[in-house]
Amino acid sequence: MRNSTRSQVDPFIVMDVMEDARQAEEAGRHIIHMEVGQPSTGAPKGAIDVLKRALDTQALGYTVALGLPDLRQRIAELYGDWYDLDLNPERVVVTTGSTGGFLLAFTALFDTGDRVGIGAPGYPSYRQILRSLDLTPVDLPTASQNRFQPVPEDFDGLGLRGLLVASPGNPSGTMLDQSALGALIEAAHARGMSFISDEIYHGLEYEAKAVTALELSDEVYVINSFSKYFSMTGWRIGWMVVPEDHVRVVERIAQNMFICPSHASQVAALAAMDCHAELDANLDVYTRNRKLMLEGLPAAGFDRIAPPDGAFYVYADVSEHTRDSRSFAAEILRETGVAVTPGLDFDPERGAQTLRFAYAQSTEDIREGLSRLRRFMAERGAR
Amino acid sequence: MRNSTRSQVDPFIVMDVMEDARQAEEAGRHIIHMEVGQPSTGAPKGAIDVLKRALDTQALGYTVALGLPDLRQRIAELYGDWYDLDLNPERVVVTTGSTGGFLLAFTALFDTGDRVGIGAPGYPSYRQILRSLDLTPVDLPTASQNRFQPVPEDFDGLGLRGLLVASPGNPSGTMLDQSALGALIEAAHARGMSFISDEIYHGLEYEAKAVTALELSDEVYVINSFSKYFSMTGWRIGWMVVPEDHVRVVERIAQNMFICPSHASQVAALAAMDCHAELDANLDVYTRNRKLMLEGLPAAGFDRIAPPDGAFYVYADVSEHTRDSRSFAAEILRETGVAVTPGLDFDPERGAQTLRFAYAQSTEDIREGLSRLRRFMAERGAR
Repeated sequence: MRNSTRSQVDPFIVMDVMEDARQAEEAGRHIIHMEVGQPSTGAPKGAIDVLKRALDTQALGYTVALGLPDLRQRIAELYGDWYDLDLNPERVVVTTGSTGGFLLAFTALFDTGDRVGIGAPGYPSYRQILRSLDLTPVDLPTASQNRFQPVPEDFDGLGLRGLLVASPGNPSGTMLDQSALGALIEAAHARGMSFISDEIYHGLEYEAKAVTALELSDEVYVINSFSKYFSMTGWRIGWMVVPEDHVRVVERIAQNMFICPSHASQVAALAAMDCHAELDANLDVYTRNRKLMLEGLPAAGFDRIAPPDGAFYVYADVSEHTRDSRSFAAEILRETGVAVTPGLDFDPERGAQTLRFAYAQSTEDIREGLSRLRRFMAERGAR
Repeated sequence: MRNSTRSQVDPFIVMDVMEDARQAEEAGRHIIHMEVGQPSTGAPKGAIDVLKRALDTQALGYTVALGLPDLRQRIAELYGDWYDLDLNPERVVVTTGSTGGFLLAFTALFDTGDRVGIGAPGYPSYRQILRSLDLTPVDLPTASQNRFQPVPEDFDGLGLRGLLVASPGNPSGTMLDQSALGALIEAAHARGMSFISDEIYHGLEYEAKAVTALELSDEVYVINSFSKYFSMTGWRIGWMVVPEDHVRVVERIAQNMFICPSHASQVAALAAMDCHAELDANLDVYTRNRKLMLEGLPAAGFDRIAPPDGAFYVYADVSEHTRDSRSFAAEILRETGVAVTPGLDFDPERGAQTLRFAYAQSTEDIREGLSRLRRFMAERGAR
């Protein structure tokens, strides 16, 4: 048996960092994890309590493919709470994490060979999922003066069928304001392109509020997840909002590809949405961590950073220090025990000169990590 | 925004039956569910207990993409227990249900337009998932004298890149013995075709033991799940066994498409594998139900049935009674309150003259359902 061409997706370069970090930990070393894009916290305690009661009383068999009606209703209400929008719950599709949303959206919207624009740097799985569906990802190299987000000129004449943006972005943490996002949606629609907005980091914003594409148009797919703000990564539960006339098509694909998202995860997610105190406390930790990072990274010599409006990442241009972010990340791990992500996963072209630092771990870890980085860079500069 | 061509998958015809049944239940009617392919039981109690302890002590973040090492190890041991096979746990990929396994297998093995043979009647999602990936499902109409399973002659000269078989089958419940399965694998390999074996109903067999494709070859993909024998449908957790040199390719696709299967479901699944008493008790119920069905269905007039070696289905040729299984199923539901599945989802050609009866519910329900069917058919014959 031979493997298909579409199966030849790129490996994650960060996996080497993670494996090295794991081996160092096994050898007894204390590793600070600035490489992982997940909260160190679990699901909110209130969500766990509700799930435990459900485990005692319900069989938790299949749900309908679009998800539990109460959960869809509660997600629609979130759009009222967060953005003052009146959203029809029928448009909400509960998904198996945001990756499940991408599979559904790409399948619902694109045919073989269709070209889909994605910002570079960006979340690596966009590119790989598109490829594995025999679609064509088109990297749109973004500029620092555009906050590492695409602008309409970036995709003029590229023959795209769709555009996918993320705000706050990963790895950049930068956001699109209402006018920048509106300009992208308008330009996409004017060119007959489908528009997908990845809003997985909404709720994790520190100065201005994040803008949802749904404030600007109903003719968009919005993808979100319980993984980040709701701190439920391992539960593989998310959602998507689609135009009303796309719901049946997405439902049929979901029935076949997924049957339904995990029932237990749906029960926990619904309860998590009311765990305000605990979620606020998590956000307070990220807020403190971000402040430490914005002081500590420049002090260590990482001073060319994207404005980190949201999420829990700082993306740094390290071209002054290296032309090989992969070996630089390996060196940092070896010398300091701080794991960081080389930019190559996010931007195959320019990522050789960038690093991503995540601050989703405990404040104590962030403080310790920054102090190790400062010492290391000072010694390195002195060499 | 327009939808893609690949998104135009067929609706499930049984959904209409399920919606009618739901409405009848809401109106206070007692419905017997012979339409649903899931156990009425939940996950084993022992699995729930272990998960509840984990919920108190672990954050349950992402796992590695291939699944928890302990779970992969335990699944490998199952192949020792069930088939006396020594399986390398590195070949085990934990999946988001069997549908997750199909997405991974089809992506790993096939390119756009590749023709993949599936037996008709068969599980409808094979066809729909293939189509949504822009692959070409090729129905292989099976013969009753071949136990509704394909034989090598059925795909001679069809230019297939792959063959997918299910034993026990859905909707037929029929099994391939060692020689029939071996002939299919050999014929597929001789033609350079990939071979996928859907073994989701293993463990639910009543006379002979089911044969795994791994007894006959290592050059196969085997897909299984915790949904049926382990009674964990809503948990969306399953597994796949692939050739050693395919593991890395499948891992990379899984990292991007799924990140990982639900961590909570993995914890519960691992514990479920040791809940022998409870799983045996479930099997006893199916065994009793099957006996009742094999007496009751012919007594009611449904006497042209496939030999139900395994699973929890009886597939009946009802051409003596109707040429429109869809309206016949609607009539049965309306007149008796017994929901059954018209064969059209499984066999778009010949399914207009077949019904599938599931016996995964309680024995009391099965007894009542059969008695209603007997009365209805007697009255119908007298008209």
